[in-house]
Amino acid sequence: MDIQQLRANIDDVDGQILGLFLKRMELCRGVAEYKKEHNMPVLQTGREQQIIDRIKSLTGDPSLEAGTAALFTTIMDISKILQNRQLLSENPDYTFSLPDFSGAARIGCQGTSGANSETAARLIFGDKELKFYSSFEDVFAAVQSGELDYGVLPVHNSTAGSVNSTYDLMAKYSVYTVREVCVEINHCLAAKANVPVNELAVVYSHPQAISQCCDFLTTHRLKNAEYSNTATAAAMVAESDPADKLAAICSVECAERLGLNIIARNIADCSLNRTRFVCISRDLQVSPEADAVSVMLKIPHTEGSLYRLLTKFYVNGMNLLRIESRPVRDGSFDVMFYLDFSGRIDDPSVKAVMNDLAANLEYFRFLGTFKS
Amino acid sequence: MDIQQLRANIDDVDGQILGLFLKRMELCRGVAEYKKEHNMPVLQTGREQQIIDRIKSLTGDPSLEAGTAALFTTIMDISKILQNRQLLSENPDYTFSLPDFSGAARIGCQGTSGANSETAARLIFGDKELKFYSSFEDVFAAVQSGELDYGVLPVHNSTAGSVNSTYDLMAKYSVYTVREVCVEINHCLAAKANVPVNELAVVYSHPQAISQCCDFLTTHRLKNAEYSNTATAAAMVAESDPADKLAAICSVECAERLGLNIIARNIADCSLNRTRFVCISRDLQVSPEADAVSVMLKIPHTEGSLYRLLTKFYVNGMNLLRIESRPVRDGSFDVMFYLDFSGRIDDPSVKAVMNDLAANLEYFRFLGTFKS
Repeated sequence: MDIQQLRANIDDVDGQILGLFLKRMELCRGVAEYKKEHNMPVLQTGREQQIIDRIKSLTGDPSLEAGTAALFTTIMDISKILQNRQLLSENPDYTFSLPDFSGAARIGCQGTSGANSETAARLIFGDKELKFYSSFEDVFAAVQSGELDYGVLPVHNSTAGSVNSTYDLMAKYSVYTVREVCVEINHCLAAKANVPVNELAVVYSHPQAISQCCDFLTTHRLKNAEYSNTATAAAMVAESDPADKLAAICSVECAERLGLNIIARNIADCSLNRTRFVCISRDLQVSPEADAVSVMLKIPHTEGSLYRLLTKFYVNGMNLLRIESRPVRDGSFDVMFYLDFSGRIDDPSVKAVMNDLAANLEYFRFLGTFKS
Repeated sequence: MDIQQLRANIDDVDGQILGLFLKRMELCRGVAEYKKEHNMPVLQTGREQQIIDRIKSLTGDPSLEAGTAALFTTIMDISKILQNRQLLSENPDYTFSLPDFSGAARIGCQGTSGANSETAARLIFGDKELKFYSSFEDVFAAVQSGELDYGVLPVHNSTAGSVNSTYDLMAKYSVYTVREVCVEINHCLAAKANVPVNELAVVYSHPQAISQCCDFLTTHRLKNAEYSNTATAAAMVAESDPADKLAAICSVECAERLGLNIIARNIADCSLNRTRFVCISRDLQVSPEADAVSVMLKIPHTEGSLYRLLTKFYVNGMNLLRIESRPVRDGSFDVMFYLDFSGRIDDPSVKAVMNDLAANLEYFRFLGTFKS
């Protein structure tokens, strides 16, 4: 057979597989209706294993069994997604509260005036009054208790990666993501004394900022020390004795406001250095323009569990925007996944996926929405 | 129809789908042979899109198109995996060098004697002499230059998560993973002065150790500062003036060796706190007992790209053990994925997946093997 003939045959086979797949969908719909009428559970795991075992035994070639098992797992997963969507369409629509950024009066972030968190908060809240907290956790606690309407915190930097503490606090507090904003970070090295770089004693800053300027610090063999925030580090340096030759990594605006000498500019490892900030609220609020959802979940200890989880999103056209994992902190190496996907929460497919995950995973939390 | 009848019909449909799938495989094998004879490239992307477009147009119900497209993408991915495996079987076998842990003379890790890295190195190299380096990067550089036979570095802690700097250095240096070991970390708070916890001035330690004891430090409102290593922090405290009331987070063994007062024991947030260490070498070496592979790669900016990548592993029975992402550091939010999968590198399926990824991804690096 030449390649044209082979391809025509493949097209013919594909048409037949498609027809059978659609017929299978119909039969699954019938099963779902039957189960509903007879108050039977949607999922019966024994049945699935039975189908896979049968397929394996029918395959003939042992080297193909993993492939046919994978194919039929995917077929069944797609069926389940469809069943789930069908069940949902009979439920009433959810309604969501809208965020009220312009009406909000109590807004907080970590650090002091001049911190990058302030720049991020200003993008959402303009020149409203901001309340500053000494730690990320204090901001989370204030949002959860109702002391704040909204809190603004960094989640991801394009050079240093995820802000682990923010992710871990999302797990600890029950708050929702309502918006994301991106701030360009322009780090400089600022000191009280106007001395050459290599005469500085210690450079203070937030660990993320230190990490973002790692190459510069290594090249100049500068000793560094952790501080809770870039702006508070700069404020401490402004109060220090010039003879101590302390420096801080902070924004140019912050250094200028405090009257510090800028020893070096643009010291981040990448010339373009951006941080994404998340705005959190106590209750779920969904912006009309939100086109992405955030979830956190644990996947089971079964074969291909992440693959099968992603099938649910893929089949519903939800694209993975970010995947992050953090330890569950129970002494095991188990992780909690944080996933961001494209999709509008009022889309029936997206709702079907959320319902499916909530019903079938050991741990699942819908964290909110944002405009990507 | 009752549920038994519906299920019998589903089984019948499944049998037919399987038959067609196997027939399709045969046809794809024919295409692969034809392409090989005529020196044509294995992959022709236009053809794939053509198949998907045809399937979508034949589906009829627009709400099912995403599902049928997903199904046929999976079918084609499985076909490609098979073609790849077939092509590989005609190539000669790879041979791998064996690691020689007992014959190695030059072994290094970061920190000083008493550090957890030493404990990890001892698990592999017994009481051989160890060379200590002041930074993780120095260890990588020494392994790459040939100054060291092996280096031992932490990669993952069960409480604080991944050791980002080790991952970033894997990207910067061309070295291989040859083994992993797990060390139970038992942090204590040690000081020169025997004073109550709340009278301590500053607690010094490695940022990961500080992060692992975050709850303890917060509860006791202790100021902390970064140090390059737990053991060097302890050594500095041992040299300090007791009146300064400095403390370090380090192992009990380290505190005792330096004659420090143990102010508090087991201060990590989780009572069980473990760290995985990786042993690296300049050349690829594969241990006979290695049953897992490490890779780093960039996934394309296309729909479902992580899902489709995982299909390759899933179909070959390779289970995902760990997924980690780190910024590419080009100013974008793009990430480099680090993936560990179960599988032996001398297994033809595993080799087929590696070849496939090397041929088709914009960036792919095989990082080595280890016993999981």
